[in-house]
Amino acid sequence: MTVSYRLSEIAEKLGGRVLGDAEVRITQIATLDSAQPDQISFLTNSKYRGQLAETRAGALILAESDADVTILPRIVSNNPYAYFAKVSALLNPMPENKPGVDPSAIIGAGAKIAPTASISGNVVIGEGAIVGEHAVIGAGCYVGANTQLGSYARLYPRVVIYHNCVIGNNLIAHSGVVIGADGFGIAMDEGRWVKIPQIGRVIIGNDVEIGANTTIDRGALSDTVIEDGVKMDNQIQIAHNVHIGAHTAIAGCVGIAGSATIGKYCRIGGSAGILGHLQIADHVEIASFTLIGKSIREAGSYAGIFPFSRNDEWRKTAAQLRHLDELAHKVKSLQQEIKALRRKEK
Amino acid sequence: MTVSYRLSEIAEKLGGRVLGDAEVRITQIATLDSAQPDQISFLTNSKYRGQLAETRAGALILAESDADVTILPRIVSNNPYAYFAKVSALLNPMPENKPGVDPSAIIGAGAKIAPTASISGNVVIGEGAIVGEHAVIGAGCYVGANTQLGSYARLYPRVVIYHNCVIGNNLIAHSGVVIGADGFGIAMDEGRWVKIPQIGRVIIGNDVEIGANTTIDRGALSDTVIEDGVKMDNQIQIAHNVHIGAHTAIAGCVGIAGSATIGKYCRIGGSAGILGHLQIADHVEIASFTLIGKSIREAGSYAGIFPFSRNDEWRKTAAQLRHLDELAHKVKSLQQEIKALRRKEK
Amino acid sequence: MTVSYRLSEIAEKLGGRVLGDAEVRITQIATLDSAQPDQISFLTNSKYRGQLAETRAGALILAESDADVTILPRIVSNNPYAYFAKVSALLNPMPENKPGVDPSAIIGAGAKIAPTASISGNVVIGEGAIVGEHAVIGAGCYVGANTQLGSYARLYPRVVIYHNCVIGNNLIAHSGVVIGADGFGIAMDEGRWVKIPQIGRVIIGNDVEIGANTTIDRGALSDTVIEDGVKMDNQIQIAHNVHIGAHTAIAGCVGIAGSATIGKYCRIGGSAGILGHLQIADHVEIASFTLIGKSIREAGSYAGIFPFSRNDEWRKTAAQLRHLDELAHKVKSLQQEIKALRRKEK
Repeated sequence: MTVSYRLSEIAEKLGGRVLGDAEVRITQIATLDSAQPDQISFLTNSKYRGQLAETRAGALILAESDADVTILPRIVSNNPYAYFAKVSALLNPMPENKPGVDPSAIIGAGAKIAPTASISGNVVIGEGAIVGEHAVIGAGCYVGANTQLGSYARLYPRVVIYHNCVIGNNLIAHSGVVIGADGFGIAMDEGRWVKIPQIGRVIIGNDVEIGANTTIDRGALSDTVIEDGVKMDNQIQIAHNVHIGAHTAIAGCVGIAGSATIGKYCRIGGSAGILGHLQIADHVEIASFTLIGKSIREAGSYAGIFPFSRNDEWRKTAAQLRHLDELAHKVKSLQQEIKALRRKEK
Repeated sequence: MTVSYRLSEIAEKLGGRVLGDAEVRITQIATLDSAQPDQISFLTNSKYRGQLAETRAGALILAESDADVTILPRIVSNNPYAYFAKVSALLNPMPENKPGVDPSAIIGAGAKIAPTASISGNVVIGEGAIVGEHAVIGAGCYVGANTQLGSYARLYPRVVIYHNCVIGNNLIAHSGVVIGADGFGIAMDEGRWVKIPQIGRVIIGNDVEIGANTTIDRGALSDTVIEDGVKMDNQIQIAHNVHIGAHTAIAGCVGIAGSATIGKYCRIGGSAGILGHLQIADHVEIASFTLIGKSIREAGSYAGIFPFSRNDEWRKTAAQLRHLDELAHKVKSLQQEIKALRRKEK
Repeated sequence: MTVSYRLSEIAEKLGGRVLGDAEVRITQIATLDSAQPDQISFLTNSKYRGQLAETRAGALILAESDADVTILPRIVSNNPYAYFAKVSALLNPMPENKPGVDPSAIIGAGAKIAPTASISGNVVIGEGAIVGEHAVIGAGCYVGANTQLGSYARLYPRVVIYHNCVIGNNLIAHSGVVIGADGFGIAMDEGRWVKIPQIGRVIIGNDVEIGANTTIDRGALSDTVIEDGVKMDNQIQIAHNVHIGAHTAIAGCVGIAGSATIGKYCRIGGSAGILGHLQIADHVEIASFTLIGKSIREAGSYAGIFPFSRNDEWRKTAAQLRHLDELAHKVKSLQQEIKALRRKEK
């Protein structure tokens, strides 16, 4: 099955202004250098204008400021990157899933599976769980007892959601995701760790996507909360009682420690970390590989990365770094000596 | 089903001294600000005493030093945090699991499943494996051939344990845990990597907990060893032939490279790393995000974290850091010049 | 079953020069200190020569330069470490797998399973997928629609490969691996993230090994590519459109961001990171815990690690580091003041 649209039809559905031949038929989206005449490409940054001369694309998506840099058929949008995303969704619809429960699935007593939901092979749904309309539960997934999963949820194969969690509509969870495992709660008692039962839940809003092998722990006493529109990449660790504000985006391998509160519209770079109990304001951007060790009260961009270099230079820098405090004291005493010398001068 | 206990009954079971109305009935544990009159809360740090005035909790757990700061019914303990953990376990017992093997499980020839063990749907148990008394094996788990699993093991859904591993009693392994995969052993031979077979095992003591998606590799020739009472958070990587001493606690996203030996009662912060073949003494505390690049022979607290700042300031620091060696040399020559100047003075 | 070989038989199969009693029978490989008389050990670094005196090993693998440091039966090789790997493979053959499809497996319409392949319990193979000769698909694995898996592929339990991926021969993928999940592609549109469909594939060459819980995302528009002979440890994150050159080895917990291109024969240390769209030359070595923030055009060894110290010293260093820019300016003005003082001297 191939989907195709005329340029005019795309603009009808998604908005934007068509320039040039509106009848050109488009079957796929592609990068400027690989696009074919039946494909549409896009320019999201004017500095790549030069590549337009070479492209074989049948049509383009451009910003207003680039509207006239080509004579190819084109759609002009005030947000060409988002427009590209929407065109791609139009041309690449998700495969239809047959509603119904695979005979190999195990459905617990009292579980409610919406009639439009699709439950694949070897799935296990716990007692009293709820699976919403049009949800697609991939092979081998596990949904714990009394967990609620909203409509249009899409769990790829082998997702695990523990008991009692509450999840909104349109969740996308990729393979290996674990939601609701116990948080890391232990108390030392006479030389042994005692486990602190994790009796909170995970509460997830609408329109959340969670990347492969990401883990989100349940709360210790109260809940772990992920608000609407949060997007998470792969291999992320969200500890118990974390609260993540709406529309925050988190790149791969990030670790967020217990009870941290992250604002809305934050962007957290890959492998960054946030220590426990901290508060991060809205609209904070954190660079990759940065550990946030105290709360951030103001929007802005933050970083803390040791700059890399050739190994031999790094060794020198690291060696001096160990004596940085000493160096600062040397400079201080030099300042005093010079002050003394100048005094004598006079 | 709701569990409830009188304050006097809790103290009978767990010790501690009751002050105030010992007959108050408790059904759950909660934080100071959310606790209801049928719930017990706790104060583990005197600096939060102020919050006691506002709490609606029906009872409290307090340290001796705080015994008299409230007139609410209370239990006084010399370790209120551990006491809280124990009360929570009392009020939140694990659900009962029906002994028996789900008909969808696949049990290999010669495997021994204790009659009190519970084997869930879609589990695969390899040939000759042993599953101990009261073990609970969650949906979709895999236990490899000849692996021994002690009594009261609890594997959440989709845990994998490879062949020939030996695991003590009371293991808790959360979803996505992989125990006994091959260590990363390769040898370069004429431009190609040759795989080194990983023929060791993973040996795990009693009372170990392992967080979601954590991986523990089998040994290359000898074994990977996790001693009694070790507690591990999510997304941790333990490489081949690592040895972790008893009662060490490891936070999320830590990586421990091959053949490292970690002492007893260590605490390793989130996303920290320990290089291969190092030795870490007992009672060592390692800060989050710290790479340990040489052995630590003395107990104590260690760190190595680049402090974060606003992005523009970070850029300045990072730029200067690249010239730190130069700066140190400048300071040295300034010292000499001043010495020379002073000599002339005389 | 125990495999055993005479020393002479080993050398016949694998090459190398036998010295001493070539008839000694060997059943296993072991470290110098644990080896028994029916076992072979090895010395890959001359500085451990001293340990030879104590070993009870029945035979040894040695470099030419160490050929005469013992009278034990021995094989002399110009690459004793690779020779050890090959001897171990000889003595520890993989268990035979019975060809055939377990009755609990679910095979999609049009899927082609080679007659010599072995499909374990609870496996799900999507429509149109191809599983090559002698492939071994472990319990609970999922192979998506139209994915091609070459011959001698070995998937340990619970590996997930999404649809449309193309994988060469001899793949080893450990439990929890996820290949082909969506890359992290989102575009901001009027306060909400819009998902960018990930329509590329993952293309993997021959002789690739992937460690437990590692994730490799599919491309956004074009493909993610892993060339022949790449070896990856556990818990690695490979983002969309990354390209990894042949025979590169990547240690645990590494994160490689979108569209990065890594050369051939690189070695990337544990928990290192590489930012998006960068290019790394062939034969580059990156230290553990190092973030690569710009392209590396020359072969060599690179690092960027904050050196650890006792916590109190670290605090001092970190505090001074925040004022490094200031310190550099102080030094500059000291230099000028001294210059001024000297001028007056004259």
